[in-house]
Amino acid sequence: MDNLKNYIADNRERFLNELFELIRIPSISSESSHKPDMYRAAELWKEILLDCGADRAEVMETAGNPVTYAEKIVDPSYPTVLVYGHMDVMPVDPIDLWESDPFEPVIRDGKIYARGADDDKGQSFMHAKAFEYLVKHNLLKCNVKFIIEGEEEIGSEHLPEFCKANRELLKADVILVSDTSMLGPDIPSITTGLRGLAYWEIEVVGPNRDLHSGLYGGAVANPINVLAKMIASATDEDNRITIPGFYDKVQEVSSYEREKMARAPYDEDGYKHKLGLDALSGEKGYSTPERTGIRPTFDICGIWGGYTGEGAKTVLPSKAYAKISTRLVPNQDYLEIAQIVKEHFEKIAPPSVKVSVQYLHGGNAYVCPVEMPAYKAAERAYTKVFGKEPVPVRSGGSIPIISTFEEILGQKSVLMGFGLDTDAIHSPNENYPVEQFLKGIETIAWFYHYFA
Amino acid sequence: MDNLKNYIADNRERFLNELFELIRIPSISSESSHKPDMYRAAELWKEILLDCGADRAEVMETAGNPVTYAEKIVDPSYPTVLVYGHMDVMPVDPIDLWESDPFEPVIRDGKIYARGADDDKGQSFMHAKAFEYLVKHNLLKCNVKFIIEGEEEIGSEHLPEFCKANRELLKADVILVSDTSMLGPDIPSITTGLRGLAYWEIEVVGPNRDLHSGLYGGAVANPINVLAKMIASATDEDNRITIPGFYDKVQEVSSYEREKMARAPYDEDGYKHKLGLDALSGEKGYSTPERTGIRPTFDICGIWGGYTGEGAKTVLPSKAYAKISTRLVPNQDYLEIAQIVKEHFEKIAPPSVKVSVQYLHGGNAYVCPVEMPAYKAAERAYTKVFGKEPVPVRSGGSIPIISTFEEILGQKSVLMGFGLDTDAIHSPNENYPVEQFLKGIETIAWFYHYFA
Repeated sequence: MDNLKNYIADNRERFLNELFELIRIPSISSESSHKPDMYRAAELWKEILLDCGADRAEVMETAGNPVTYAEKIVDPSYPTVLVYGHMDVMPVDPIDLWESDPFEPVIRDGKIYARGADDDKGQSFMHAKAFEYLVKHNLLKCNVKFIIEGEEEIGSEHLPEFCKANRELLKADVILVSDTSMLGPDIPSITTGLRGLAYWEIEVVGPNRDLHSGLYGGAVANPINVLAKMIASATDEDNRITIPGFYDKVQEVSSYEREKMARAPYDEDGYKHKLGLDALSGEKGYSTPERTGIRPTFDICGIWGGYTGEGAKTVLPSKAYAKISTRLVPNQDYLEIAQIVKEHFEKIAPPSVKVSVQYLHGGNAYVCPVEMPAYKAAERAYTKVFGKEPVPVRSGGSIPIISTFEEILGQKSVLMGFGLDTDAIHSPNENYPVEQFLKGIETIAWFYHYFA
Repeated sequence: MDNLKNYIADNRERFLNELFELIRIPSISSESSHKPDMYRAAELWKEILLDCGADRAEVMETAGNPVTYAEKIVDPSYPTVLVYGHMDVMPVDPIDLWESDPFEPVIRDGKIYARGADDDKGQSFMHAKAFEYLVKHNLLKCNVKFIIEGEEEIGSEHLPEFCKANRELLKADVILVSDTSMLGPDIPSITTGLRGLAYWEIEVVGPNRDLHSGLYGGAVANPINVLAKMIASATDEDNRITIPGFYDKVQEVSSYEREKMARAPYDEDGYKHKLGLDALSGEKGYSTPERTGIRPTFDICGIWGGYTGEGAKTVLPSKAYAKISTRLVPNQDYLEIAQIVKEHFEKIAPPSVKVSVQYLHGGNAYVCPVEMPAYKAAERAYTKVFGKEPVPVRSGGSIPIISTFEEILGQKSVLMGFGLDTDAIHSPNENYPVEQFLKGIETIAWFYHYFA
């Protein structure tokens, strides 16, 4: 492993150029017009993994977007690592807030700016390059399998079916994933918990056409007003969710564990400052790390209805819509929550409108035990590269497939993320520091060394 | 007046073709890209009125869109009628719901389908043709002035200044306006009251960029959730507006007048059926005609924020917006309400977001006394043409400039409207029955006869 640092330094430009080629494919999974780009990305991943040293790689169909599978079986008696990543990215709107083309990566101030630079093209590509190093230098003492999917940003809808159909192919001792963040460039951390997710679209229909708000206003229910009331009623003054049954299965975290969490570095003023906020807001009785780590949420991700153009058009609209998401915590079942929330909104709909709620996707929360050998190997790898032992962190994000892997493949995942809070994933000007990218490759290579 | 009916019948095709030429100009005042169309419409109105017999017509500038002024002074000792109309129209979205091009009028089932067919190109054009008949047959015993403006649909912002600057030019004994409806094709009615209006845009800003709803959700206020709460809190369970001071100056209508209103024809089942509604909804303690006629409203005309595209993007958005309108009733001052509402929303904004409220436009409510000679003349004209005495009706709509005319020019307006409830003004497939158009011309001609 002596020449690892040099190898990475010597191949830096090539690594970046190869990553940029992957980023240039606008593989936005939520927009059906980008379907051909999903196939382009899958084919490119196949080439990448073969070039890096895989014995076998192929693009495999699912009922949705394709999956790229690859493997190198060094010795059947060795332990097997399954690397999971995703080739799909989020939409880019609002496009006018991007300082450069989201699909033409550029490096500014040491950061790669592009959609997918971090999430998850940049992070998953590190695995290819760590693998390349180990194969080339005959240092790989594990079997490695790769599964790169194309539907993570839309809830990995077809991956569970794929896993069920390919249990033997995907058999491994641990799953390795880089799709999370560290607390800071100098504060290595490993995500040991993920929140679950459930997501709905709600439609409120009032009159059968847009009406004149003067002639009808006051006598006909306005779908936007009704939608606002329904949304508003879902949380109370303490920012607790009021939907009956919502908290029933929430795992209450012990005061011992909450005390331990409170010791993790957290700078509230800095946090507010970075977001441009005068005040934070969340569930009463919980700290900010607790609000994002161990408590569920109720967020409106989008809302629309009526006249949204320039100037002052008066109208009593026929329809209003919202996209609603909740983050879930351990023991909440996302399918149960999906049903509870749907039924709640349909039940509280006043008779003056018609409300329909469509469940779109979700997944359960996940917890990784810190005693696991693979976690310990990751811990040593971070310590080696960053010079500090990584902090275990419960993240607020969701990677629904992680809990599904546990259910279907019976394997825990270790979340070796190298993103930073400032990477603006899912936002305009997503970026990924080149330094994190290179250190990530180094850390992953060390993981294999310690894990084997 | 003997040949009036024949004249209208003989010239029917020509009248329609001339109107269609006017309708084909997409004079949408709320969209600045249509500014040149406002000038085209103003020039066409000048030609129309000169052709109909005006002594003088000109396009006059304002600080906004131009105004067409025309006049025929038959004898300075005669009474003078000022005809007011507007050449501008509402936007056409949602465009996909139109069955034919909104700016290419077609006649289907005896109705003219086009944006502006009723509001207000069709209705104001009737005045030109009634005027033409009277001039051509030397029957005009009044002086007539026309003022056709281009900003009615955006609140007539620059017309008050124009009126102040041209008080002498616009001097008249009464103002005549066709921009309202009748209760039905066989139920002639004259609008004797109009609601006022105030309109705002509200902006709620949370974090300085769109955030990952997993990493930040629960700890950072979501501007859409906050906006929904603010809007929801503005009305209570009885659909009364909760903004302090909002009702302070509302004129309570006497039980005598409410009883009289209750005698006007109103078919609740038919009303619901036409709108496709199972139930109506409005302020507790008031009937539907009262809710639209004598009570103020609080309607969200538009709302937007976050992800509104296809599929399930999770995001905690940076901003959310709504367009809010209230309809006002006599004695409420729209500028006072503008301020009260703005201050209220800015005051109740939680510290976790920044809220700004921009007042966009408004006007006061209006009441026309039924004892006025001009009202009596209109009443006789409707009776002559429709065979029934017209019902006086308080409409829920607003024509802000009507109360401004009273304030600046010191003149009451008579609202001789011929629209129908089914005309879908401000909506897709706006239409105007040819029969109403022709009867309107006839009724207006008789008005001059009786008024003189």
